[in-house]
Amino acid sequence: MEQTAVARWAITRVQGAGVTPDEDLLAVEEPLEVQLRYTEAGQPHYKSVAVTMRTPGNDAELATGFLFTEGIIQDYTQVASVSEGAAGDNRVLVKLTGDTRPVLQQSDRNFYMTSSCGVCGKASIDAIRTVMPFATPAAALQLDAAVLFRLPDLLREQQAVFGQTGGLHASALFDREGRFIQMREDVGRHNALDKLIGYALAGGYLPLHQSVLLLSGRASFELVQKAAMAGITIIAAVGAPSSLAVSLAEERGITLAGFLRNERFNIYSGAHRIIA
Amino acid sequence: MEQTAVARWAITRVQGAGVTPDEDLLAVEEPLEVQLRYTEAGQPHYKSVAVTMRTPGNDAELATGFLFTEGIIQDYTQVASVSEGAAGDNRVLVKLTGDTRPVLQQSDRNFYMTSSCGVCGKASIDAIRTVMPFATPAAALQLDAAVLFRLPDLLREQQAVFGQTGGLHASALFDREGRFIQMREDVGRHNALDKLIGYALAGGYLPLHQSVLLLSGRASFELVQKAAMAGITIIAAVGAPSSLAVSLAEERGITLAGFLRNERFNIYSGAHRIIA
Repeated sequence: MEQTAVARWAITRVQGAGVTPDEDLLAVEEPLEVQLRYTEAGQPHYKSVAVTMRTPGNDAELATGFLFTEGIIQDYTQVASVSEGAAGDNRVLVKLTGDTRPVLQQSDRNFYMTSSCGVCGKASIDAIRTVMPFATPAAALQLDAAVLFRLPDLLREQQAVFGQTGGLHASALFDREGRFIQMREDVGRHNALDKLIGYALAGGYLPLHQSVLLLSGRASFELVQKAAMAGITIIAAVGAPSSLAVSLAEERGITLAGFLRNERFNIYSGAHRIIA
Repeated sequence: MEQTAVARWAITRVQGAGVTPDEDLLAVEEPLEVQLRYTEAGQPHYKSVAVTMRTPGNDAELATGFLFTEGIIQDYTQVASVSEGAAGDNRVLVKLTGDTRPVLQQSDRNFYMTSSCGVCGKASIDAIRTVMPFATPAAALQLDAAVLFRLPDLLREQQAVFGQTGGLHASALFDREGRFIQMREDVGRHNALDKLIGYALAGGYLPLHQSVLLLSGRASFELVQKAAMAGITIIAAVGAPSSLAVSLAEERGITLAGFLRNERFNIYSGAHRIIA
């Protein structure tokens, strides 16, 4: 893989009573826009067909593979050229051959945004950052490392369905003493969090400044974005965070811990809220 | 969770040299359409704002949580009512109060489909099923169980980046003797597979009737759909498959194995292609 697939980040390792500054490698997550150029009635048309959060590298393959698996093109001979933007530009332009018409969905109804996608329905990452309704309080919530250690077991106790199928993501809320508040599960990790925040929204519990969010898997940009919308200040993930998840957490002043298991975790941002 | 969150399925368990028919519980995966009703100039407007693949249950929370975390509504007082469809209808209608205007993206450019979403840009699951370019050959490829057992280790050898960050999904192709062909990684599982299929597309290797696809995590509907587009006949996943992934594999005559680790796996469909 290319060098850009990983990024270095200064972290705080917490293991039992031990706290050590260290460095960790993060999987890079950045948006990629797939643009299509095709000719109709002699005129060139440009269409942005997808924006997806991805790890940089093999962008041309990603763009053409996406066009094929979505049924927009049927054959590689329909591809005249694929131009990747300069590093950091995060755009790929796929030019189709003269007589090729992409099979795009006809109806407006087919262009959905969805909670499963990184940036569907959003003009840019910057746009996401501007709509946050709650400011993150600097130090409203502090948490003992020992409390965090307990959370995965408490979640597993609640995850009856997960235990049965092994196939569900979970998002759960705990209070500062580590008491379980609520949990939601779904095949989609974003859905589990949307359900949990929908529960809190209906109950009038927002902003969730006093709650800890536990994610059963990895922490992506989209999950941190959703948590930030709900005013959550501490996020702990059983899995790894992505680079953009960490960037957003740092920018919003959110505490983000990853690899929470077996009495250890790494702090990627907002270490001041954790008492170790 | 509701009863509908899991589904029973007859499977074949393979462990070492042992083969036993058994039953497994699958996490149910079904599309949900979120519809919005709001009033503008005295006229009611209906808008379909999202279709997401989700586990049934807490659909009202999912819909309102999604609307809030996407910034479409700002407050629960803007919600007049939430109507869930009958079981199996898979629609939720969120009615906004009289003077509430949803914050929908203005530009068409913002309504993307993306490889991260289950059914973005697709009118229905049925539509997905009709565009498959390749028929699945009934028995072109057969595979020894011992070959499957070896694949996760072979994948890990190739996953240098995964080893460093713990944060990347991988999709890999192997031949019928278990020889490694190619692998792609990404923070998004659908992207990893799109990259791999994009590689095969550019190389002229489609349809991939003679290759085995290994997925580093769970098998969702969307991943099976993409594999089917590329003509893959055997899919093995280290994690659990969802109910809709299994249904599609069965419908397409694709062999789907899950929980492939420690010299064991479960076969969910197409057991005739595995020699145990």
